[in-house]
Amino acid sequence: MAYVTIDYKAALDFCRDLFPKYGFTKEQSEQVTDVLLRADLYGIESHGLQRLVRYHQEIGFGMVDTQARPEVVFETPVSAVIDAHKMMGQLAGRFGMEKAIEKAKTTGIGMVVVRNSNHYGIAGYYTKMAADADMIGVCMTNTEAIMVPTFGRRAMLGTDPIAVAMPADPTPFLFDAATTVVPRGKLEVYNKKEQPLPNGWALDADGLGCTDASEVLHNIIHRLGGGILPLGGEGELNSGYKGYGFGMICELCTGILAGGPTANHMTSVGDHADTSHCFWAIDYGIFGDKAQIKSRFSTYLEELRTSPKAKGQQRIYIHGEKELESMGKKQSEGLPVNDKTLSEMRRIGTEMGLDVDHYFGNIGKA
Amino acid sequence: MAYVTIDYKAALDFCRDLFPKYGFTKEQSEQVTDVLLRADLYGIESHGLQRLVRYHQEIGFGMVDTQARPEVVFETPVSAVIDAHKMMGQLAGRFGMEKAIEKAKTTGIGMVVVRNSNHYGIAGYYTKMAADADMIGVCMTNTEAIMVPTFGRRAMLGTDPIAVAMPADPTPFLFDAATTVVPRGKLEVYNKKEQPLPNGWALDADGLGCTDASEVLHNIIHRLGGGILPLGGEGELNSGYKGYGFGMICELCTGILAGGPTANHMTSVGDHADTSHCFWAIDYGIFGDKAQIKSRFSTYLEELRTSPKAKGQQRIYIHGEKELESMGKKQSEGLPVNDKTLSEMRRIGTEMGLDVDHYFGNIGKA
Repeated sequence: MAYVTIDYKAALDFCRDLFPKYGFTKEQSEQVTDVLLRADLYGIESHGLQRLVRYHQEIGFGMVDTQARPEVVFETPVSAVIDAHKMMGQLAGRFGMEKAIEKAKTTGIGMVVVRNSNHYGIAGYYTKMAADADMIGVCMTNTEAIMVPTFGRRAMLGTDPIAVAMPADPTPFLFDAATTVVPRGKLEVYNKKEQPLPNGWALDADGLGCTDASEVLHNIIHRLGGGILPLGGEGELNSGYKGYGFGMICELCTGILAGGPTANHMTSVGDHADTSHCFWAIDYGIFGDKAQIKSRFSTYLEELRTSPKAKGQQRIYIHGEKELESMGKKQSEGLPVNDKTLSEMRRIGTEMGLDVDHYFGNIGKA
Repeated sequence: MAYVTIDYKAALDFCRDLFPKYGFTKEQSEQVTDVLLRADLYGIESHGLQRLVRYHQEIGFGMVDTQARPEVVFETPVSAVIDAHKMMGQLAGRFGMEKAIEKAKTTGIGMVVVRNSNHYGIAGYYTKMAADADMIGVCMTNTEAIMVPTFGRRAMLGTDPIAVAMPADPTPFLFDAATTVVPRGKLEVYNKKEQPLPNGWALDADGLGCTDASEVLHNIIHRLGGGILPLGGEGELNSGYKGYGFGMICELCTGILAGGPTANHMTSVGDHADTSHCFWAIDYGIFGDKAQIKSRFSTYLEELRTSPKAKGQQRIYIHGEKELESMGKKQSEGLPVNDKTLSEMRRIGTEMGLDVDHYFGNIGKA
């Protein structure tokens, strides 16, 4: 698997021109493009252009309804429940966080849940919307079951990411983490390299620790049992029940509150995913002077950055720093895209009637 | 270290009679007693009667002001900031969650932060108050620094517990977890047994993995560097930066929002701790029909309980089940207390003018 670098502007233009072909409006296409490319800019390849082939299929199969519009089905001054009517997850996500921010502007807090949606990309995109509005953002989404609860052998929870953002100077705190010890993509990398998995990542069909990536992935795909462990690993020694608990919080705040299915009832590719999300925006001015609060937080982040490093280490990172640095670099130097992804993009573009050479020249041309 | 069993009612009467001796009102004494003994009932010995000697000292040194009353220093319909004026942490905690619940009854959500408080026992006590009021409860507290951030070698975060409760049938979901991989008490147990620590629990003064419990504890006490690792362990392999991130969320929601110090500026025994807490109550009726939501959640918990077990395992636990079962058993069969704790209780009781034999007879008598 080789990587090629494409110009960021070319990727942007390609997506902006591609999505209207599916029937999305110009504004919707702009929104989906922004969420999708942000993942690649942040260096989270698994959630970026690589997903285009999946979205293309999902739209083709009717799992995603490009004409759907979100419907507020329940509302209070501080909350809303939204039925996404199978719309594109990125659009449901943007709508959900915008609604939460709008409520927080009036009441100080907005808590919005969304059901009947689809995969929405990186949770951290939506919390950053709140941070950009000078608010605390919280975002979660459920996913198909892949996490096995402590002492279990069947996946009953999703990767269940929890994202939290808070404004700070010079850059915001942007936390975004699956509550599994690692995402499925990490297992795929080990599988490709034919390396054994570290202990504490995955379980076999009997619910016992397993370092064979190929076996675990096979079992996951064919639903034969086993899966990925919660943050904290197997059993109780390293507190795997804590990761399982954080996953439960995500399941509660998404499927349970929104009225969608929990991870264990979510369907696989080929059927509508029925994903649920939650979006909280908190205007931290409800706790006093915003400038003072933000300044206290920025000071603490700087104390962390400048605190002594472990022997052999040069840097302590604040959550989000790696992603923001990656974004700046890739916007100017170009996006690394693996050649398989680029060839899929070329195929999809051609299929949808775009002149792909116009965007990418001869790069990745078969 | 041997354990003796004391009657739960005797422990209750002892505490109820002891706390007024420090100048607490009858109602306050009742509240502190309830929080304190709940930890022992749940089987969380580290936060129960064992702490009495510390509270006794803190009151004696003036770190805890028994005459203090909480002051609401900032307020909106959905939030409040409270200065606890060095009051007993348990009283500040009860006051904080009561205020959050009161707000949630009107607006649907109450978010309360408290500063200038003291150690308040188990975070899960306060979230259970919200669950008992048929609401979702969230509670966090900062503590003296003991968690070393990923790639660091100085403790910059506390154990930073996050607790979340949600009503369910037959019993509520009660999650309460330090965001460190283990609490300090676990290191003390290994130290007493002279066993090496598991990998991924602690760091030496250079910030390198260390399995010598005695060395780590010595370094922590004398602030020589190192400390306990975040949930997920050392470095990035098992995603220790996720535990570090959850700790950051706790620091943000406590010291930063409340206007108290972050863990790295908190003082040690002998000085006022200046602890901050946060309390959220969310009336989940803001997301629709409460009976339906609770029923969906109860069904999911039952699906988890009955899902297939790992080979060799008999049971998948829902968070809080172990604690509630322990509570029922100990209320009827008695509280196991280690003999050192009981002898401290006898000494403190006598010092405060109680006839300790009245409560404990000859048990634990020197």
